Amino acid sequence: MSKIKKAACIGGGVIGGAWAARFLLGGIDVSIFDPHPDAERIVTEVVANAERAYGMLTMAPLPPRGKLTFCATLEEAVTGADWIQESVPERLDLKRGVLTKIDAAADPKALIGSSTSGLMPTELQRDMRHPERMFVAHPYNPVYLLPLAELVGGERTSPETLLLARERLAPIGMKGVILKKEIEAFVGDRLLEAFWREALWLIHDDICDTETLDDVIRYSFGMRWAQMGLFETYRIAGGEAGMRHFLAQFGPCLAWPWTKLTDVVDLDDALVDKIAAQSDAQSGAYGIRDLERIRDENLVGIMQALKAGDGGKGWGAGKILSEFETHLWSEGGGNGNGASLSVDTSAPLRLVDTRVNAAWVDYNGHMTEHRYLQVFGDTSDALLRLIGVDFAYVEAGHSYYTVETHIRHLGEAKLGQAIYATLQILSVDEKRVRFFSTIHDSKTDGIIATAEQLMLHVDASAGKSVVAPPEVMAKLAPIAQAHAKLTFPDGAGRSVGQKN
Amino acid sequence: MSKIKKAACIGGGVIGGAWAARFLLGGIDVSIFDPHPDAERIVTEVVANAERAYGMLTMAPLPPRGKLTFCATLEEAVTGADWIQESVPERLDLKRGVLTKIDAAADPKALIGSSTSGLMPTELQRDMRHPERMFVAHPYNPVYLLPLAELVGGERTSPETLLLARERLAPIGMKGVILKKEIEAFVGDRLLEAFWREALWLIHDDICDTETLDDVIRYSFGMRWAQMGLFETYRIAGGEAGMRHFLAQFGPCLAWPWTKLTDVVDLDDALVDKIAAQSDAQSGAYGIRDLERIRDENLVGIMQALKAGDGGKGWGAGKILSEFETHLWSEGGGNGNGASLSVDTSAPLRLVDTRVNAAWVDYNGHMTEHRYLQVFGDTSDALLRLIGVDFAYVEAGHSYYTVETHIRHLGEAKLGQAIYATLQILSVDEKRVRFFSTIHDSKTDGIIATAEQLMLHVDASAGKSVVAPPEVMAKLAPIAQAHAKLTFPDGAGRSVGQKN
Repeated sequence: MSKIKKAACIGGGVIGGAWAARFLLGGIDVSIFDPHPDAERIVTEVVANAERAYGMLTMAPLPPRGKLTFCATLEEAVTGADWIQESVPERLDLKRGVLTKIDAAADPKALIGSSTSGLMPTELQRDMRHPERMFVAHPYNPVYLLPLAELVGGERTSPETLLLARERLAPIGMKGVILKKEIEAFVGDRLLEAFWREALWLIHDDICDTETLDDVIRYSFGMRWAQMGLFETYRIAGGEAGMRHFLAQFGPCLAWPWTKLTDVVDLDDALVDKIAAQSDAQSGAYGIRDLERIRDENLVGIMQALKAGDGGKGWGAGKILSEFETHLWSEGGGNGNGASLSVDTSAPLRLVDTRVNAAWVDYNGHMTEHRYLQVFGDTSDALLRLIGVDFAYVEAGHSYYTVETHIRHLGEAKLGQAIYATLQILSVDEKRVRFFSTIHDSKTDGIIATAEQLMLHVDASAGKSVVAPPEVMAKLAPIAQAHAKLTFPDGAGRSVGQKN
Repeated sequence: MSKIKKAACIGGGVIGGAWAARFLLGGIDVSIFDPHPDAERIVTEVVANAERAYGMLTMAPLPPRGKLTFCATLEEAVTGADWIQESVPERLDLKRGVLTKIDAAADPKALIGSSTSGLMPTELQRDMRHPERMFVAHPYNPVYLLPLAELVGGERTSPETLLLARERLAPIGMKGVILKKEIEAFVGDRLLEAFWREALWLIHDDICDTETLDDVIRYSFGMRWAQMGLFETYRIAGGEAGMRHFLAQFGPCLAWPWTKLTDVVDLDDALVDKIAAQSDAQSGAYGIRDLERIRDENLVGIMQALKAGDGGKGWGAGKILSEFETHLWSEGGGNGNGASLSVDTSAPLRLVDTRVNAAWVDYNGHMTEHRYLQVFGDTSDALLRLIGVDFAYVEAGHSYYTVETHIRHLGEAKLGQAIYATLQILSVDEKRVRFFSTIHDSKTDGIIATAEQLMLHVDASAGKSVVAPPEVMAKLAPIAQAHAKLTFPDGAGRSVGQKN
């Protein structure tokens, strides 16, 4: 699979900065060129938001973060890059000029994507010497979380370019969707524009205010579309008879009003004033940073929920997340945001670094009881991967199952708090591993909770414990031997409520 | 707060049946009239889907299910009902006739809602004697999960009717949104129609196929709209400068293409064939029942994720769910889908009945480790409510905190499996409660897992253990005394890996 080795972002606003964050968190070095005086501040803020979001999104091991460089010239930024993303303001002459400069300075094999939300790639690539590698890669905000990039080629874009672009986006958790033809505004913004036009009429005509309109969306079809889109949703509405039945049933009924709803509203001062005032009334209690935080937490939660979809196989954006995580695990990772694969056995193994996620807390912001066990479970999973009990091993029919767990709560973890977990092996035999994990506060190293656990090696289909194979024991035994020399942890070997 | 005491559903298809399910699961008796031969089968299937979804959606105690009666006449169905919901096919003459018959037979104070997705209430209420209590309550499929009902009054609807309707929908977990003016297709379907028209063009013109179009939606703005809608999302896009800035920035740019995108597509045979074939290619691998199941699981997961939104306060549909659950807890419930408040102390207390939820399992369909602790946590929460340590008690500053837990896994719980949890108190003093919970298979009563736990009574703000008040001890002590006579559970008092 082709992967991006070095990326360049030309234009570093909210969109360019979020592309940079995607690349950086995917382990790719990024060079940015943007002459705007605020560019560095904006990019830094967006990358910080992205890091926070990824800390909640996944426990999979992110690779070591890429290096971020702000460049003084466009030419310096694109040098050595194999993916160059243009995200300058939405004006044809400006974009065409920038893309032509990129083309002249870049490696002729580097892919050049434009973030334009509506301009035709044929127009944009007009003056290029190597237009065959130029295309539109239109993302959606927040780019670091929403997986979609609409991939659109112009008349001179080679078909291979679009396939290669799609392939290179997958390892950074994105879903490149290739359109068959170029049109202005592509697919997403064509749909959004039609919707927006209608929304403006509803506000203009005082049918409802902006808050009511948003409520109508998010309490109903917004949730449907987050997981199935339009046609699949309507397929269900058609019942067993399917899409044809839906069209037969609802087509004529819909045809009647829609012919009347196609005028274009005038977005004059009065309408702008009305929308701005209603929006203030609706959302003014939250600052933009608050809304961004809430939105990102919600999107993370939705993607995690969808990851459990279709009986755990993952659905929609949750399936993309699941594939991204499988990729991360296969790469091994190790920047401290997931399992470190270091095997320094002179101390308990530090296996998980994370933050207390918004979905993990009660209404008081305290981490709920079972989420502690989730972190302990991630810790023991990390141990298992370290000794070769990975996804492939489990797929082949064997695994370790937890049979006993003893948790002690010694402190409290709160929303957003950075925590890490260490693990010390207490005893090992051919079938059993007993170990003691500790969740620490990352700032103070103080102990928040401990868990003593016993795992059995099992044949999953036979449903019984069996001896672990030599290759697993060969990895496990040295850790156990080293850990036997460590202090036996305070709190291990106890029953519930035991005094000493 | 005004609540529905008895509901009637006139028309029992997918929409009418799902209204019936909402009412029934909200504890309200429902009479249905629908002369269609398949009505009883369809309603029964929809109610079964709704029950399955609610089993995953909430651990709050649902009230005893309402009684469902199929009636031979419209008049019989509406007798005694204080909410009558009309869901017959979308034809003005038919709906008007049915509503006029309902009006004649019903209590003059009963509210009469129409499920129409586009007809004007003024037209529908034309021939009524008591039109002031008639309105549109337009829901979205699946009605038992999506909270929205658009409430629209006609010229002769009284404003009080709409307020009363909104008030009565809240206790069944629905959000009534009142529109300021009636128009054809209201707000939701106006927006959907504009969107649908544009989608048909994109398919007609071969810009993409239906699967690509759905992917574009669900990997991007679909997820944004599931939680914030249109205007709040764009407010963020405007940054600190807010909505006015967004409109200034994107208004002119959007104005240019949209004037060209307002033609109406002809939904002829060729286009119907194309859409049906593409939809088969996209979704044909799943039957409609599969798609419904997947959709419902996804919607449940999204709502649960949003329940954790805004730092645990709940956001969007998650906030509606949270309010619904608060209502359920305040009502006490007790149909076995949540905490039973029976205090038969001659055996361990049966406190939780649930099913293994799709979000709780790994890719093999087995319940993940920490979800066992979630069920044990729900079990101890149910005990706490039983002894008066409820939401109000915790809000006032005191609570019980779990300080130690010892879990043993003796079997496995799988996706969809019905399970229940029992709890036996082992010892109690003024500050401490030690107890032993067991998760059972609901079919065989076999033991799947056990947990011994120790809780401390705490002053939450002081962060230290304090003596529990007499009113709590008065409820706790009799249970503890009765449980002291029961057999001490096998597996209690053990440390991890202890042989006997």
